[in-house]
Amino acid sequence: MTKRYFEDFAVGEVLALGATPPVTEEAIIAFARQYDPQYFHVDPARAKESIFGGLVASGWHTAAMVMRLWVDAIVSKTVSMGSPGVEDLRWPAPVRPGDTLTSRAVVLETRPSKSRPEMGLVRWRAETSNQRDELVFTMTGTSFIGRRPSL
Amino acid sequence: MTKRYFEDFAVGEVLALGATPPVTEEAIIAFARQYDPQYFHVDPARAKESIFGGLVASGWHTAAMVMRLWVDAIVSKTVSMGSPGVEDLRWPAPVRPGDTLTSRAVVLETRPSKSRPEMGLVRWRAETSNQRDELVFTMTGTSFIGRRPSL
Repeated sequence: MTKRYFEDFAVGEVLALGATPPVTEEAIIAFARQYDPQYFHVDPARAKESIFGGLVASGWHTAAMVMRLWVDAIVSKTVSMGSPGVEDLRWPAPVRPGDTLTSRAVVLETRPSKSRPEMGLVRWRAETSNQRDELVFTMTGTSFIGRRPSL
Repeated sequence: MTKRYFEDFAVGEVLALGATPPVTEEAIIAFARQYDPQYFHVDPARAKESIFGGLVASGWHTAAMVMRLWVDAIVSKTVSMGSPGVEDLRWPAPVRPGDTLTSRAVVLETRPSKSRPEMGLVRWRAETSNQRDELVFTMTGTSFIGRRPSL
């Protein structure tokens, strides 16, 4: 398989990250029991009395599901060299059982690394929506991508 | 149990979030198979040839483990009203099997909400270190905390 190099990313490009299977109540509860046991993530009955009106996914579960889309759609097909971090995580609407999440990322900036000539930096903003086109998660980040070797 | 209100948080206060049990190889692989299946997170043999020299936890797994500390130490004992988001996630060193992660958060700013008088905003920076006092994860965020009812 031919992988994408730094030179293959252009500012303004939209990267389609694909969609999750429907998020199940079981998966929401299993993740939250381990990592975020607030009652509106783990207890469907009590969650009805919360400000959400029902069970909702942990924001960290949503972030992890988006990471899976990112790995399958981009990282596995790119000369990926890691990331210095991510910024500005926002969860503007809750994720509920049965939701399907679709993600895309827009390339904001590309620049060669000054300190490491074998790679470049690609800055992006990722947006994730549910099946009703409501934004449920946004974040900005930077990826280190290997440069195409000169021939 | 008496819960903490917005008025109980002071700028400069250090919130001890406690420590995780040792992070197991099994937990690292289980999380990553589902959410971040890069080879250095799921394949101990191949991971030896990676830049990490061995299996390391997904950064999202580390974030989720820190969320669990946060929930047990703070959220469950506070009149918590959610969060608008988190910022500046950084993973300065890898998390490896056997590591124990200890977290603390420093209160950076507190201010009453202008639009919602029943709550205030507490801005914090959280730092997570391993058993050798190496920083492995940092982030900044804001929590909405309920105000103490006037008598």
